[in-house]
Amino acid sequence: MTVRVLVVGIGSGDPAHLTGEAVAALNAVDVFLVADKREATRDLVTLRAELCAAVVTHDRYRFVEVPDPERGPDAQRGSAGYAAAVRDWHAERARRHADAIRAEVGDDGTVGFLVWGDPSLYDSTLRVVETITEQLAASGVEVEVTVVPGISSVTLLAARHRTALNRVGQPVHLTTGRRLVEEYDPALGDVVVMLDGDLACAGLVEAHPDLQIFWGAQLGLPDEALVAGRLADVLPAIRDRRAAVRAARGWVMDTYLLRPG
Amino acid sequence: MTVRVLVVGIGSGDPAHLTGEAVAALNAVDVFLVADKREATRDLVTLRAELCAAVVTHDRYRFVEVPDPERGPDAQRGSAGYAAAVRDWHAERARRHADAIRAEVGDDGTVGFLVWGDPSLYDSTLRVVETITEQLAASGVEVEVTVVPGISSVTLLAARHRTALNRVGQPVHLTTGRRLVEEYDPALGDVVVMLDGDLACAGLVEAHPDLQIFWGAQLGLPDEALVAGRLADVLPAIRDRRAAVRAARGWVMDTYLLRPG
Repeated sequence: MTVRVLVVGIGSGDPAHLTGEAVAALNAVDVFLVADKREATRDLVTLRAELCAAVVTHDRYRFVEVPDPERGPDAQRGSAGYAAAVRDWHAERARRHADAIRAEVGDDGTVGFLVWGDPSLYDSTLRVVETITEQLAASGVEVEVTVVPGISSVTLLAARHRTALNRVGQPVHLTTGRRLVEEYDPALGDVVVMLDGDLACAGLVEAHPDLQIFWGAQLGLPDEALVAGRLADVLPAIRDRRAAVRAARGWVMDTYLLRPG
Repeated sequence: MTVRVLVVGIGSGDPAHLTGEAVAALNAVDVFLVADKREATRDLVTLRAELCAAVVTHDRYRFVEVPDPERGPDAQRGSAGYAAAVRDWHAERARRHADAIRAEVGDDGTVGFLVWGDPSLYDSTLRVVETITEQLAASGVEVEVTVVPGISSVTLLAARHRTALNRVGQPVHLTTGRRLVEEYDPALGDVVVMLDGDLACAGLVEAHPDLQIFWGAQLGLPDEALVAGRLADVLPAIRDRRAAVRAARGWVMDTYLLRPG
């Protein structure tokens, strides 16, 4: 038995940000597997369904939810058995996906995973698919994986602010909110921050008062918000916009670029 | 007088990598300004024309070439007057573009710049457009700039190798071939190298024999070439593929990801 797996970068959620290749891929999928773990789950599932409805020209596809396993006490950061518990949790998640594929997809069928933005940046889908592929191979199911690149939130952030990410000949560094303050050094070049739940850049204002920030939330969605300026000056405005977006929609997804002043 | 300027990321050259937004943007352009400075100029101009022919549904657009000014002896790296000479050279380039816009585009007209990959990464178009905008504003022409994001070669490289750019929770660093050896440190996370004319990564093999490389050339084009493996093992194979692509096509554009082993 052979199954095709398409990991499709769907960009911002605006159908205009889909590539032609992504539209063709969505049209080739029989079963979309969905395992969203973010608080925003319901809203994001709805957005995905709307996206498919907008671009898929047939009705022979379906969405199958694969409930995430419970994350036990050992799989919480700081626990002694953390690494092993997370490994078990990932394996269990992959097993549930493999079971769903065996149950829902026939020989020569096509499974789709929709990834916000692009699968190459801070997304776990490709790792999960790798484990699923190993598990299915062990039971005689061959998997062919294709990755369809998408417009990432980083690319869209730069476009909205009409700026390049890099200064001439200089580097660009992408990191997480968790790492930012410890890692920051102007020698890193322009720094893009992802997965930042609480504007970690506030911790840089004192040491780097001239940093410029280009910030964006809900990029590509109707409630998109943008702020740019000297970090020390605009941080209060960003906090306000961020809180307003969250209050109106129930969740907020943001990213930003920091540039030495 | 008002002019719209669309800076459009066209991805790899494969029309399937255009977003719907990019296709709409190309269809809205009256005049495409072309100032390609790479050796591969003729081939790339042809590819662009083919791309437009493939997706633009009318024939009311035209390409206008804006010859780049000569780069005088002071504008060569290492010259004493380098910075000033480059500034002058950029200003002259922008002036030629502004002249072309005044001559070729009417009120309410739309100018397009096609950018390979995405305008946010190691591309000068947005800087040129900023200077053009200032020069046109000084002569009473208002410019509205819109940036349409595209699939970058970095995103496509990751997709082809079916890998994320980052390891879990770790950073990603993008830099140039010129900076790589001096800058490299495993603490930077996964490192993507752009603008590397001569596989600078060879200079890392001795100090970092376990580095993994994911390499790609002509990504998205029919002569695409991919190699992945332990850098120390696969460097000769990459050199061979690179030379073969260049021999067959006359030019080679490549990029790669380095991952601590």
